[in-house]
This record gives sequence, structure tokens and C-alpha cells, in this order.
Amino acid sequence: MPYVNIRVAGTLTREQKQQIATELTDTLERVANKPKSYTYISFDELPDENWAVAGKLLGSGD
Amino acid sequence: MPYVNIRVAGTLTREQKQQIATELTDTLERVANKPKSYTYISFDELPDENWAVAGKLLGSGD
Amino acid sequence: MPYVNIRVAGTLTREQKQQIATELTDTLERVANKPKSYTYISFDELPDENWAVAGKLLGSGD
Amino acid sequence: MPYVNIRVAGTLTREQKQQIATELTDTLERVANKPKSYTYISFDELPDENWAVAGKLLGSGD
Amino acid sequence: MPYVNIRVAGTLTREQKQQIATELTDTLERVANKPKSYTYISFDELPDENWAVAGKLLGSGD
Amino acid sequence: MPYVNIRVAGTLTREQKQQIATELTDTLERVANKPKSYTYISFDELPDENWAVAGKLLGSGD
Repeated sequence: MPYVNIRVAGTLTREQKQQIATELTDTLERVANKPKSYTYISFDELPDENWAVAGKLLGSGD
Repeated sequence: MPYVNIRVAGTLTREQKQQIATELTDTLERVANKPKSYTYISFDELPDENWAVAGKLLGSGD
Repeated sequence: MPYVNIRVAGTLTREQKQQIATELTDTLERVANKPKSYTYISFDELPDENWAVAGKLLGSGD
Repeated sequence: MPYVNIRVAGTLTREQKQQIATELTDTLERVANKPKSYTYISFDELPDENWAVAGKLLGSGD
Repeated sequence: MPYVNIRVAGTLTREQKQQIATELTDTLERVANKPKSYTYISFDELPDENWAVAGKLLGSGD
Repeated sequence: MPYVNIRVAGTLTREQKQQIATELTDTLERVANKPKSYTYISFDELPDENWAVAGKLLGSGD
């Protein structure tokens, strides 16, 4: 541990995922004393239509 | 918040996801006083073989 | 299946949880043809300080 | 219940998923008295680049 | 990885959790070639009233 | 969205949680163009005995 799950609508590039993983792992070490080697991060990239905010699917166009 | 994750085996149509999101967001506002704009809902649609009940993968045919 | 996880900041009364479970289970049956007996719902009630929106913990007072 | 979510990087064969489901469902019955029919297990198979350990995406080659 | 989340209603003893962790970690190594040191398992023990099956909270008495 | 769930064994202080939320929300805006107001972060702080690594519960003393 820690285990972090990051869920977004749409996709991220490999470079974006690598940069987020680098910064978040650093944050958890610096702020919470979690050794970098312990941190697992998973990314879930969901289609827009699998995410709803305020009762509307994203990309609804209305 | 709230954040709701709905996981099903198989797929849902866009219309089914929209209807579920509409009704659930309404339920959370009406029953629990959560403003609609706060509610996030994500849907995960899993292949049958990624779901087991009673120790058997769905679609096992036995 | 389906499995639904509902996460809120703060607490819900037993009556609120029962009403949400009743309505959501009904929605999933009516809209998505999921038999009521298949639906599992879990509720996670988090302390305000374990939830951040826009980079601020809830209940921050600022 | 119980509900178990198993997340791996890469893929599992159908046979691997079936065997894991069989053994885990048996473990939960034998060790924790959970009837087999109650146990739901879901598998999430993530691309290597959606998983980071120690701040590096899997399959980074460095 | 793998990361496994086990959610139950009610509590498990420390011995039950240790036994489940031992067996599941062994299963993942033997069946799916996941080195034991890679496997993280977390347990969430929920109050009965935070779990609904078939639209009824557990422990409803009806 | 995004929705991020951070799970740790043990507890974090309010200040640690606030700092992690600040930095991660900033990272997601800067790296992935996610407006700060869209980002939800939840923290789950688990007892040591609810977390296993390599088949052993944390705090096992062996």
C-alpha cells in the first residue's frame, strides 16, 4: 500500500499517465511517508457514456 | 459527492444508462438531500467471463 | 450482479439507506431487466475530512 | 455478499479466472462461513500502461 | 499488482483474514503466476445495514 | 470526474489529506486538463489487519 485508483472519462496518453503516477507517488512519499516502492496506482478510462454528472451522461449534447 | 459505481455483467444501452442515472440521481436528491449536480455515477460493463457467482463464471453453460 | 457501491460524505439513516436500496433495485429491474434478487448494494459513509472536492477537504470552513 | 474485486495488469485466460473463482469461493465458505451462492467475484484486467508501481507504468522498459 | 478488495457484511477475525490472505495469495501465484510479494489484499467489513440484497438491508428482520 | 480513491493502511492527519488533495488536484489539472472543480478524491484509512501484502496481514510482527 497505498493503492490509488484514478477514474476518468475519456482517455489519457501514456505520457499523461506516467506524469500523474510520478507526481502522485512523490506526493505520497513526501507528505505521508509512503515509500515509493509501496505505491500502486491504477487508471480506469471510461467511455463518456459510462459517466453521469447531475443525472446526465457525459457527451449528451444537451 | 455522492459517487456511485454500478457494475454489471454484459452491456447496457445508452438509453438504459441514461434512465438509471436519471432515476438514481433523483432518488439521492429526494431521499438523502444530495443536490443533483453533486452526484457522479460511473458504469462498468464487464464481460460475462469476468464475473463469477457461486464459484462459476457467468456464461459457463453448466 | 449487478453490484453497486454508493459512497457519500457524512452519514445516512437506516431509513434513507433502505429507501435508496428499494428504489435503485427497482430501477435496475425495470430499466435493465436485472432480477431484484441479483442486486447487491453497499454503502460507504465517509467522514467529511476524507472527501475532497476541487482540492479542498469537505468541512474545511474556507 | 461477499463481493470480491480482483484487479490485475494484463489478461487472464478463462481457465485461470474459473480456477481462481473456484478456489476463492471455497476459501470464503470454509474459512469465513460464507455460503458459496452468496459470493460475487469480478475481474478487472488492465492494460500494463494503466498500472504504476513505484511511480513507473508497467512495461516502461526502464 | 494484483490488487484484491474483499468486502463483507459483518466482521472477520484476524485469523480468518490471515487465512483468506494466505490462501488467495497462494492461489494467485499458483494459478496466475503472480509472485506473492506483488499481491495486495484489502478487507472492508461493512455494518449489516450498509449492505442490501434484493432491495433489503441485511438484518432487516423481514 | 475525475474520481480518485486513495486507500492506505493506518491513518493520515487532516493536514496530510489536505496536502495530498491539493497536490493531486493540481496535478490532474496541469497534466490532464481536468478542471479543479471536477475532481473528487476520497480517502479510505484501513486498520493494519485489513491489509495484506505477500500473504501476510500488516502488523503481523513476523
